[in-house]
Amino acid sequence: MPGGAREKGRTVASRLLAIIGAFDAAHPRLTLTEIAARTGLALSTVHRLVAELEDWRALGRDEDGRYHVGRRMWELGQLAPDPLQEVARPWLQEVFAGTGENVHIAVRDGAEVLYVDKVYGRQAVPIVSRAGGRLPMHPTGVGKVLLAFEPAWFVSAYLSRSLERPTPHTITEPGRLARELTQVRARGYATTHEEMTLGSCSAAAPVFLDGRLLAAVGIVVSSRRVRELPRLIDPLLTAAQGIARDYRAAVAPRTEYGADAGRLAGR
Amino acid sequence: MPGGAREKGRTVASRLLAIIGAFDAAHPRLTLTEIAARTGLALSTVHRLVAELEDWRALGRDEDGRYHVGRRMWELGQLAPDPLQEVARPWLQEVFAGTGENVHIAVRDGAEVLYVDKVYGRQAVPIVSRAGGRLPMHPTGVGKVLLAFEPAWFVSAYLSRSLERPTPHTITEPGRLARELTQVRARGYATTHEEMTLGSCSAAAPVFLDGRLLAAVGIVVSSRRVRELPRLIDPLLTAAQGIARDYRAAVAPRTEYGADAGRLAGR
Repeated sequence: MPGGAREKGRTVASRLLAIIGAFDAAHPRLTLTEIAARTGLALSTVHRLVAELEDWRALGRDEDGRYHVGRRMWELGQLAPDPLQEVARPWLQEVFAGTGENVHIAVRDGAEVLYVDKVYGRQAVPIVSRAGGRLPMHPTGVGKVLLAFEPAWFVSAYLSRSLERPTPHTITEPGRLARELTQVRARGYATTHEEMTLGSCSAAAPVFLDGRLLAAVGIVVSSRRVRELPRLIDPLLTAAQGIARDYRAAVAPRTEYGADAGRLAGR
Repeated sequence: MPGGAREKGRTVASRLLAIIGAFDAAHPRLTLTEIAARTGLALSTVHRLVAELEDWRALGRDEDGRYHVGRRMWELGQLAPDPLQEVARPWLQEVFAGTGENVHIAVRDGAEVLYVDKVYGRQAVPIVSRAGGRLPMHPTGVGKVLLAFEPAWFVSAYLSRSLERPTPHTITEPGRLARELTQVRARGYATTHEEMTLGSCSAAAPVFLDGRLLAAVGIVVSSRRVRELPRLIDPLLTAAQGIARDYRAAVAPRTEYGADAGRLAGR
């Protein structure tokens, strides 16, 4: 699409937001030309608005002229009220302390896993998840859990798409994946074996809040430790229950004492 | 100032950014009227731009009609390249595992402490710091460290202001504070005793990178455990050195292998 082709009829505000939105996990650093291509805005518009964003420190510039999201955006982002992250951290911490392995918590957002927080050590196996990062649902432990407890219509819509295959072990055949999800529901937890990353396997447990699935807690270990996965399930289930209990306590004041109490829950 | 008084001559982009910037730790939830008052924009302008921000999920709305920073901003903020947070987490983790106390890392931003990350348990003493949060420098352990290693002109400028006094134990007398900072430089670490919060004391150590102060690592414990503070210094100093070493390794590829390698360091 030629530069500026999608510019007409858009408000300045929407152009500015399009520029900020051009950045994502797959595109954390962009040149002006790349921003123009990704937003459909004219290079001159991009040039002018990026300068305003840089002045405001919403964007920063690398030595090579590429732009990235600035620390001011990080600071602002930290104001987003998320009792889940606040409440989950000590529980992830505890699982990590007992196992020495990477532990994370994720929610479903659209048809993807959105990682909310991660606790990791210096020795643990490197993992691809990061706070704020997204991954497909079917190859990850947390994703299988989040998918398994969705209504049937959602699951069939998900399975009917063409599914990513990050490793040769990723389960993409719809029938096999559906059976896997049935098993997750029956067992109350999910496991993966080199389905997202070669050399890593994982387990995950659901965090239920009053019968509704809120999130999934997962642990990732080296494939060499696959035999130890079963004994990691109990700590995960304990953490999942603890998170649900603390989350309910954190958000309860909002409904009990009116709107203002939500502020307490937020931090 | 009457609504709209500061509106003239401002670009739409700057108005939009002013609205986002109206939110901070002290004002995490705002009504439209409050946003108009804090930005100097006309209520009609605020109404229109907030609607665009809400559509885009940069802002969210509470049940009582107040607005807050939305999860999309949090996600975007997570893209800000910060090797410090990534590198420090496992070290904070280790200090936490060895002590069970709240551990955090902070940098200086302007004349304030900006907390970059925090590791905390369910049992530890509650603390006021949070990731993305700011506190004054002189009443906090990390703040004293960050202040102590600044050049003399910065320190005298800081001390010449009227200093906040969150507790009766806060040191605000410039001469006494200057002596305290001399001691911090001589010892290589800082301590506080109920200077920020009654019932809490803290210790902090500097993270030096090639002779330049990068950050400070701190631990906060209950005042009842004040006698144990001295034995927490060594783990803090070890963590500070480890963070400096890992940080240097994380950012090194940027200079060694050219611009693109910075991406590796970012995450």
